[in-house]
Amino acid sequence: MTGKLGIVAGGGRLPGLLIDACRNSGREYFVLALKGQADPTLVARSPHAWIRMGAAATGFRILHEQGVVDLVMAGHVRRPSLVDLRPDLRTVKFFAKLGRKGVGDDGLLRAVIRELEDEGFRVVGADELLPDLQIPQGALGCHTPDGQANADIARGMGVLAALSKADVGQSVVVQQGIVLGVEAVEGTDALIERCGALRREGAPGVLIKFPKSGQETRVDLPTIGPDTVRRAAAAGLGGIAVAADATIVVDQAEVIRIADEAGLFVVGVPART
Amino acid sequence: MTGKLGIVAGGGRLPGLLIDACRNSGREYFVLALKGQADPTLVARSPHAWIRMGAAATGFRILHEQGVVDLVMAGHVRRPSLVDLRPDLRTVKFFAKLGRKGVGDDGLLRAVIRELEDEGFRVVGADELLPDLQIPQGALGCHTPDGQANADIARGMGVLAALSKADVGQSVVVQQGIVLGVEAVEGTDALIERCGALRREGAPGVLIKFPKSGQETRVDLPTIGPDTVRRAAAAGLGGIAVAADATIVVDQAEVIRIADEAGLFVVGVPART
Repeated sequence: MTGKLGIVAGGGRLPGLLIDACRNSGREYFVLALKGQADPTLVARSPHAWIRMGAAATGFRILHEQGVVDLVMAGHVRRPSLVDLRPDLRTVKFFAKLGRKGVGDDGLLRAVIRELEDEGFRVVGADELLPDLQIPQGALGCHTPDGQANADIARGMGVLAALSKADVGQSVVVQQGIVLGVEAVEGTDALIERCGALRREGAPGVLIKFPKSGQETRVDLPTIGPDTVRRAAAAGLGGIAVAADATIVVDQAEVIRIADEAGLFVVGVPART
Repeated sequence: MTGKLGIVAGGGRLPGLLIDACRNSGREYFVLALKGQADPTLVARSPHAWIRMGAAATGFRILHEQGVVDLVMAGHVRRPSLVDLRPDLRTVKFFAKLGRKGVGDDGLLRAVIRELEDEGFRVVGADELLPDLQIPQGALGCHTPDGQANADIARGMGVLAALSKADVGQSVVVQQGIVLGVEAVEGTDALIERCGALRREGAPGVLIKFPKSGQETRVDLPTIGPDTVRRAAAAGLGGIAVAADATIVVDQAEVIRIADEAGLFVVGVPART
């Protein structure tokens, strides 16, 4: 945990949290920012280079030149445009190896990690580097799920487990036993918003967000933050259930403050009950 | 197939198609229209009564008085308001029997059918009554799926099979192997519209709509029509794949005309490939 850390940065706040962690601990780091994905203001004050997503050879060269061995991939990656994805020869070789089998997002991530390890990098997880940001088991704030909410959480975990097998989905919203919505590529925010319009009267719904079973948590760790709680409250949800010890909670104090005020529970649940 | 047919009418065009079928064949029928669900203009010219969804005793009494034995439940049911659902004693007994286990939509439908059969009705399927409206195997119009589209159809069927086990979902949109969206309670139209905004460049996506495995097709038969094709075209999809012999295609001639003109395929696929 001492060498220079390479941070391959996609979108969202996770890359910034890793940069902060390196600075606080005095660890050297280098950011390889993905064009069209990473937030420019987050990486500007760090040693960094921008690359297109299709430019694997350039990426590998830069990281080797920087003396990076430990590598963390952080943040979400939206569909790149075809121009950004325009593959160099190295990337073409990678895709050729993948073949024409339909891999889901997670299958693709695992293939990327294998490829990086073949290049001599050690891929570490954001979860290893940010242990303090993970949600423990139990309620974060002062509110806890009631019987109906617990039943909805169990139902949601069942749906996510079934979806996992098809390599789809991290989140569902369940209300009174009814699955209001399932997340695919639209993202958790869009799911929450849509379910606000679909909700029924009575006991409020729950957002259940879990890593896919067998998910590469080294790359793609479910993340919630103050915005998630705000949106959930606006959509009339009663709470949020996430996987204990496998979910990053950004800005935990603010999450608790907003949730307590809005009457929402935020609870870490063991992956299997 | 000769006695008076009771049509329990929810929303959408299916009840009207059944009314037309009875008129054309000269079969006597009676419509029990669900308040807040059935289309008033569709039932107005038929012998009918309106009931709240929670008024099971009244519904049973009316149907018995009408001398109905064969019963078909047709059309979708949106979340009723609590007022419409206000259960009479008979309905309370039904829900008490269901218990607190979280049944999905399909589990609920099966329980309703059992209950109707206990009351002496014979529940027949819209599929039995409207065999001419079902899509056969193969392409309906002049366009057919290419290799990528066939791969997307297979991927979509895999996801729906996994979801079926959790009693969720009838439709997904898949593009280039990526699951763009999964339908829960928002309905197929909302799914199509959302996926239009999420689509990537290149080979277009496919809407895959199948009955859940073990779904009560007697009550809830997947239905597509001209509107589905128009929306799919507007969302940039390349085609629609549905279950052969288990999907109602409303206004088939118009579906073919719109699909052919827009360059979309509409294909009936065997439930298991």
